[in-house]
Amino acid sequence: MSDLTGKTVAVLGGTGPQGRGLARRFAAAGLDVVIGSRGAEKAERIAAELSEAIGVTVRGAVNADAAAAGDVVLVVVPWEGHAELLTELKSQLAGKVVVDCVNPLGFDKQGPYALAVEEGSATQQAAAILTESRVVGAFHNVSAVLLEDPDVERIECDVLVLGDEREATDLVQALADAVPGMRGVYGGRRRNAHQVEAFTANLIAMNRRYKAHAGLRITDV
Amino acid sequence: MSDLTGKTVAVLGGTGPQGRGLARRFAAAGLDVVIGSRGAEKAERIAAELSEAIGVTVRGAVNADAAAAGDVVLVVVPWEGHAELLTELKSQLAGKVVVDCVNPLGFDKQGPYALAVEEGSATQQAAAILTESRVVGAFHNVSAVLLEDPDVERIECDVLVLGDEREATDLVQALADAVPGMRGVYGGRRRNAHQVEAFTANLIAMNRRYKAHAGLRITDV
Repeated sequence: MSDLTGKTVAVLGGTGPQGRGLARRFAAAGLDVVIGSRGAEKAERIAAELSEAIGVTVRGAVNADAAAAGDVVLVVVPWEGHAELLTELKSQLAGKVVVDCVNPLGFDKQGPYALAVEEGSATQQAAAILTESRVVGAFHNVSAVLLEDPDVERIECDVLVLGDEREATDLVQALADAVPGMRGVYGGRRRNAHQVEAFTANLIAMNRRYKAHAGLRITDV
Repeated sequence: MSDLTGKTVAVLGGTGPQGRGLARRFAAAGLDVVIGSRGAEKAERIAAELSEAIGVTVRGAVNADAAAAGDVVLVVVPWEGHAELLTELKSQLAGKVVVDCVNPLGFDKQGPYALAVEEGSATQQAAAILTESRVVGAFHNVSAVLLEDPDVERIECDVLVLGDEREATDLVQALADAVPGMRGVYGGRRRNAHQVEAFTANLIAMNRRYKAHAGLRITDV
């Protein structure tokens, strides 16, 4: 499988619950992690808190510097600023594996629902903007609550990894495999990313019905 | 939970692999099952073969008669004839729980992909046509190969059940629960059915990559 040794993982939007939770788990697994945010001060503060909580150094930087530092760059920002941020960081992200983790969802009084995306999905939008990067979709369906809970030792779920370049999807599967309990599973091409992003709406509906932190496992794989 | 005692399960399109496989499992679980097809002769022939294979009587009838006989009616027909068939059977399906199991998928040289559906999903299309029925989406992600394999005793997967009426989704969850290994899980409202239908494209991609019959399990529920 792909070797993550010596690679730096950057998490853009790493100060929100999902990004912070993923950064925590990757750092705890021994990977070199830098979290990015819009402001350097906030990124450094959250990184310092995280480092203290897990006893491993996590760095913080503005998104552009985090993107430049990462060999693998996760995008965990709100859907609203997604296209704009990626357009700004196109040159920093060139030549890299970019992992889009964004779920374009809306909420109303009936609960969550999937938003229509012109390009088909957040992952496809990222690929349309970042023409010099290898864009993979992954980590859409992982509970931020579980990722951030220090009492949860194993994240028992499968991470569906979507992409069109085998080397890139293998690397991201290895990244998921690095977290105890988590498993990276190839989930299809980028054009089939929409339903995986949108499925997070179903998981939220399940969480409400069952008072759970629902996740996915794939059987027979 | 909902009581299926004395209820008849009709499977429209019950002569194809998916419908035949579901009919087999429901009949083996002790439910009264009738399979529907476009032609009575074919439906009766497949029903007779199935009855002999599992040692339990399954009836066969034209789709209209099967729809009239069923208390719960599964729709397992090809996407191409979906709207037309439901429009024809609207009066037979009035007042019933209709379970849409259809996955609108396309295939090209890159594999499977989700088709765009004007109403949002097959389930929503069914609900738009069958205004006098309670329409639920379910059984989208279950492998026909496993359902039809006489050596597979347990169907180890979760069935996501999508609908807007609690009594109807509870009934369909109970229907899934009747099959050994299978579990019905509430998966959200009908407006979130698209991604569950489309996810079958991802499962097919996984089947190709891993030489598997992939299915879903939901964790923490």
